[in-house]
Amino acid sequence: MNEPATAIEAAVAASPLHPLKDELDIVIPTIRNLDFLEMWRPFLQPYHLIIVQDGDPSKTIKVPNGFDYELYNRNDINRILGPKASCISFKDSACRCFGYMVSKKKYIFTIDDDCFVAKDPSGKAINALEQHIKNLLSPSTPFFFNTLYDPFAEGADFVRGYPFSLREGVSTAVSHGLWLNIPDYDAPTQLVKPLERNTRFVDAVLTIPKGTLFPMCGMNLAFDRQLIGPAMYFGLMGEGQPIGRYDDMWAGWCIKVICDHLGLGVKTGLPYIYHSKASNPFVNLRKEYKGIYWQEDIIPFFQQVVLPKDCTTVQKCYIELAKQVKEKLGKIDPYFDKLADAMVTWIQAWDGLNPTSASFSNGKTG
Amino acid sequence: MNEPATAIEAAVAASPLHPLKDELDIVIPTIRNLDFLEMWRPFLQPYHLIIVQDGDPSKTIKVPNGFDYELYNRNDINRILGPKASCISFKDSACRCFGYMVSKKKYIFTIDDDCFVAKDPSGKAINALEQHIKNLLSPSTPFFFNTLYDPFAEGADFVRGYPFSLREGVSTAVSHGLWLNIPDYDAPTQLVKPLERNTRFVDAVLTIPKGTLFPMCGMNLAFDRQLIGPAMYFGLMGEGQPIGRYDDMWAGWCIKVICDHLGLGVKTGLPYIYHSKASNPFVNLRKEYKGIYWQEDIIPFFQQVVLPKDCTTVQKCYIELAKQVKEKLGKIDPYFDKLADAMVTWIQAWDGLNPTSASFSNGKTG
Repeated sequence: MNEPATAIEAAVAASPLHPLKDELDIVIPTIRNLDFLEMWRPFLQPYHLIIVQDGDPSKTIKVPNGFDYELYNRNDINRILGPKASCISFKDSACRCFGYMVSKKKYIFTIDDDCFVAKDPSGKAINALEQHIKNLLSPSTPFFFNTLYDPFAEGADFVRGYPFSLREGVSTAVSHGLWLNIPDYDAPTQLVKPLERNTRFVDAVLTIPKGTLFPMCGMNLAFDRQLIGPAMYFGLMGEGQPIGRYDDMWAGWCIKVICDHLGLGVKTGLPYIYHSKASNPFVNLRKEYKGIYWQEDIIPFFQQVVLPKDCTTVQKCYIELAKQVKEKLGKIDPYFDKLADAMVTWIQAWDGLNPTSASFSNGKTG
Repeated sequence: MNEPATAIEAAVAASPLHPLKDELDIVIPTIRNLDFLEMWRPFLQPYHLIIVQDGDPSKTIKVPNGFDYELYNRNDINRILGPKASCISFKDSACRCFGYMVSKKKYIFTIDDDCFVAKDPSGKAINALEQHIKNLLSPSTPFFFNTLYDPFAEGADFVRGYPFSLREGVSTAVSHGLWLNIPDYDAPTQLVKPLERNTRFVDAVLTIPKGTLFPMCGMNLAFDRQLIGPAMYFGLMGEGQPIGRYDDMWAGWCIKVICDHLGLGVKTGLPYIYHSKASNPFVNLRKEYKGIYWQEDIIPFFQQVVLPKDCTTVQKCYIELAKQVKEKLGKIDPYFDKLADAMVTWIQAWDGLNPTSASFSNGKTG
């Protein structure tokens, strides 16, 4: 075991508990040895890891000693899902959603293997998972904006003029964290601003209002599997697919319209991780270029989508969404027909592995 | 002239220019001598002040030397507006909107007389007006949420997955600033948390998404008079009215639905001011208690209001809104009939004092 940095030791000392230790899995897609976990050890070692290997299954991935994990490569995915394995991307980090499906826990935290522990402005190491858990365990407020941000944060509250009937909030399904250092830019922006680094530490968490879409990044993300898991599908990317780097975006559009429909909350803001290395903008451009023009139609589609009242479970919402994707986006490119089919296959595979969740209802719709 | 604090002098040295000096008026409602301006002198002295005296007109308000100002008391308002003066509140800071009406400038910054210069985490004095001007002069992005907040801020941009067609943004009509120290809480929250202070400096500006309402506080607010001025009416509060402390809230609901309809942006976040003194929660409770239950109906009304396509100017939107207020909120209390009439009177008075703005169109609707 490497010696963790002093700042990290201090943080661990300050936070000796590991909340939800038995109710949360950490999902990591990777093609390399997981040395990055050394830095996370004080915060993550007590949790169970689900590692999804996204490249050549004959390669061995080394996991630092002391971590409790299960690892799935492509052969495992094919064996477990059989023909339904077609819905899981190959040679792309989009395969991470397989980890969401095989987990049996209530919560998921997913993180990329080039993400390190960030420091807050005081120099203290940030326990990203602890903040995600705070975000998920406190309500969201999607129906009215609170100008002092998260009213459930310490030292904050609802401001004057916030309707009292809305102060109870709704359950939080998703916590979207941010990145210091390398910002999550698309290839054109990377090319134009190769030296831009994110150094702004914004000390806030906020609910993304109902009816508003956002670009969800999969690098530093947590969610309640029980509330929204079946919608957290990262689509078809990587080998054999016409686009990449839209896996998390696709999931973000889908989960947001379903959360809005089911009355669930999506938060963004804290925690930050330190994103170490920009991916190659030329490679990214090749992966993204179709997505960049397709999204001009996809986003209006998601902005206008209406789910019928009888869609009372995430699964029902997702199957309905797949139907509408086929009808409305199939015209753009045959890829969307294939994606719509994969969305249905994904739900079948999910329900196969999670038989009790198939009829789970999230309560109120709206 | 008092000696300004060293931090302030440093800030002024760093920012020797006073942007929009000839295009912006500062509106201050008050009942007392304006000693608070001493602390603001380095930032505000070059600007023109419009002081609206909200109490006994026989009292003399002292303004520190060196400030260029015009001052209106109730007698002035009655003289200038004649019978239309009925739309301007008396003995309430809601009277500030008279200042918006008599201004001939493009921009307004309004600030309360218990607001002082705040410091950023590095200890530097914050030039609130300069930040408001930055907010107003850069576009807003109401149609899609940017997870790194204001994409036009230094060191920031649109993140991966943000549609390129939406990156031009729309004109910003309103910049809503925040408060350190005493947060803007309602009376019940003040009573429950008398010692709570806001110490969280959130280094962000963000656009409030289209379709989302927010509680607009009038303490630290700037706007583009030409784009939204006629909707910035602070209603009927104070002497002879059944509620108080809902003047800015009312204006906030109205401007937001009109900005959404006209395709204009509303930002919130930076700059902070230092709010020095909590108002009396018992007095506040008396003023607010009707508003606290009325808002449970008012907010759904504003969330559902639809303005017809032919409402292409702020004035037309506002008259239509007054009509709908009378129809839908008049049932709650006769006060809303009176308020709806005052909204119409306000527009008549505005157009009387601003004859060329009456037919001004803000362009696209949607």
